[in-house]
Amino acid sequence: MRVLILGGDGYIGWPTAMHLSAHGHEVLAADNYLRRRLMREIDCDALFPVPNLHERAGLWRERSGRDVRVRVGDLDDWGFMAEVFEEFRPESVIHYAEQPSAPYSMLDRRAADLTLRNNLGVTFNVIHAISQFAPDAHLVKLGTMGEYGTPNIDIEEGWIEIEHKGRKGRFLFPRAAGSLYHTTKVLDTDLLWFYVRTWDLRVTDLMQGPVYGLATDETGDDARLMSFLNYDEVFGTVLNRFMVQAVAGHPLTVYGKGGQTRGYLHLKDALQCVRLAVENPVEPGALRVLNQFVETFSVNDLAARVRESGARLGLDVTVNNLPNPRKEMEEHYYNPVHTGLLELGLKPTPLSDEVMDEMLRLTLRHRDGIVPERIVRGVKWRR
Amino acid sequence: MRVLILGGDGYIGWPTAMHLSAHGHEVLAADNYLRRRLMREIDCDALFPVPNLHERAGLWRERSGRDVRVRVGDLDDWGFMAEVFEEFRPESVIHYAEQPSAPYSMLDRRAADLTLRNNLGVTFNVIHAISQFAPDAHLVKLGTMGEYGTPNIDIEEGWIEIEHKGRKGRFLFPRAAGSLYHTTKVLDTDLLWFYVRTWDLRVTDLMQGPVYGLATDETGDDARLMSFLNYDEVFGTVLNRFMVQAVAGHPLTVYGKGGQTRGYLHLKDALQCVRLAVENPVEPGALRVLNQFVETFSVNDLAARVRESGARLGLDVTVNNLPNPRKEMEEHYYNPVHTGLLELGLKPTPLSDEVMDEMLRLTLRHRDGIVPERIVRGVKWRR
Repeated sequence: MRVLILGGDGYIGWPTAMHLSAHGHEVLAADNYLRRRLMREIDCDALFPVPNLHERAGLWRERSGRDVRVRVGDLDDWGFMAEVFEEFRPESVIHYAEQPSAPYSMLDRRAADLTLRNNLGVTFNVIHAISQFAPDAHLVKLGTMGEYGTPNIDIEEGWIEIEHKGRKGRFLFPRAAGSLYHTTKVLDTDLLWFYVRTWDLRVTDLMQGPVYGLATDETGDDARLMSFLNYDEVFGTVLNRFMVQAVAGHPLTVYGKGGQTRGYLHLKDALQCVRLAVENPVEPGALRVLNQFVETFSVNDLAARVRESGARLGLDVTVNNLPNPRKEMEEHYYNPVHTGLLELGLKPTPLSDEVMDEMLRLTLRHRDGIVPERIVRGVKWRR
Repeated sequence: MRVLILGGDGYIGWPTAMHLSAHGHEVLAADNYLRRRLMREIDCDALFPVPNLHERAGLWRERSGRDVRVRVGDLDDWGFMAEVFEEFRPESVIHYAEQPSAPYSMLDRRAADLTLRNNLGVTFNVIHAISQFAPDAHLVKLGTMGEYGTPNIDIEEGWIEIEHKGRKGRFLFPRAAGSLYHTTKVLDTDLLWFYVRTWDLRVTDLMQGPVYGLATDETGDDARLMSFLNYDEVFGTVLNRFMVQAVAGHPLTVYGKGGQTRGYLHLKDALQCVRLAVENPVEPGALRVLNQFVETFSVNDLAARVRESGARLGLDVTVNNLPNPRKEMEEHYYNPVHTGLLELGLKPTPLSDEVMDEMLRLTLRHRDGIVPERIVRGVKWRR
């Protein structure tokens, strides 16, 4: 299948490009290096250097004998988006091209402005590009479990049947996200749902939980093919950050009581999920929502797992419960449904001790790259 | 109270400025004349000329002896928004500054792009301007009943209690709007609700139905103080359009079966509602949603009323059921709650025969201004 990956340089973007290429798809990866630019601006570079997209495609060609096409440009610019679509005429479009950090979106007004305008702008452009140049293409959009927040009722897969005053209706599951970044994904969903029902687009909206890990079937042990391992508070996801904190001898930064519970998954499983969505497109006029995670953990669960893994590898890991810089519930009900991707064939990779230790060993190999000042940045949710 | 009106040149904006001024408030009206520019670009000027904002303020000073301050600039430009806030330090902010036409938002990609970026951009800027320069100010935001769409269950005022699998939660009432314009208001609500709960803003979100009428207590008979009477398919609201069609001898353009039902209100009542919201602000951290309409009518009801009014004034009014250019239900359940504004003190102006005939007489006085080519423009919702 001809698959266009928007945001093909990102934490999941590049691994997806290799994964789909390995599975025989024809891939074009487009990106404007926004994440690299922002990481540089706030001095939060990844643990080890990541080659640029052209270099990555070259390394992948050497390793696999397969081509991934690359275009560098701003997808929030209609001219560039249209050019890529006209040239490639995708059958499937994966949309990752968003500012991906919750703390960055809460940093200050300019960062929030960039997040809102970039994320909505690219989603808008991709809708219109599909409509104009590839009306049969299936759009696979990366949303987030964070769109739902932590409601007091079970979280369904995107939709809910409501009975109210004796009448029934089916609606998008109510959303209440915890950061501006997550809120832009709520807006994306609203926008997609409008155009799906008005123009009969074909869309899968993946509500993904936090992802951990770096090594995939495609990277093997070659760190040059791996993603950004961010360990800072802004671009790092929680388990990746804890790994680096453990290696750096920094107490694990648990926010508040640490009861915050989310649905997590390994990067390998994120790739499986996206591929399954691409290979099983929906009919015109359908917005399919899939909750994309494998297991739920609290932050305290993750801290305990890192401490255990550290003990196995000879590290003395401590935990520090910091005042919570976010506005979120630290103890809450959390019971999200996640059967759709299993039905499509997902073979989950649980967070076993082996997976934990493999991640920690990889981090240990790169311990010289740790810049301790990057670990805590003090971004606060409140004014 | 110091009240800042964003979009103070619009159909409701300028009447609001006069109305609040007449009620003793200190008013600054800001606008970038976007609506005037778009009306000119697509050749949809109003039935009679409307003086610019500076001229209107001068006419109002002559009539009332009261000042309305005016600033012309683009509120989607942070620099301008910040300047207005720093200068005026409002206690209350009314946000009307959006591209207000559903058909315009469906015209083509550029028009849709302008609608999305302008509407979300201004909402974003006003949130940040309040946070930075006027953290205690109460924001009164103009939403639309169209945010809800036409669900199969009763429409509550913004919020709904859901019982699901034995547990309960309170959520924003589910939204599914019928045009991109209406969808931008859904996105506004999501964005406001995020910042309300994160930063404890004070916000009232008015879900307004279609408004009709021109004359208010402040305009008297002086057409120079009245709003744009748009009768084109793009910027005209349905009853105003039907009035001009009746006078022009053009069959009333009912879309499809004409069973589409909405909650309507007179411009006078829209002004009352907004003033009541301003004069009764909410506490920090509250998003109050009020359904702002007086009576529900189907399009067929309105067409019948115009025909009757025409008969009384000697006009032979006919009706033409056109193929529906929109994607909407033509027969549907519709039962929205609207008690909040009545509790605040709204004295409704029902659509009496007197009101109908007054509107039709005003239109007859300006019949020479009708350009028949403006009535139908052929904007279609489908690709």
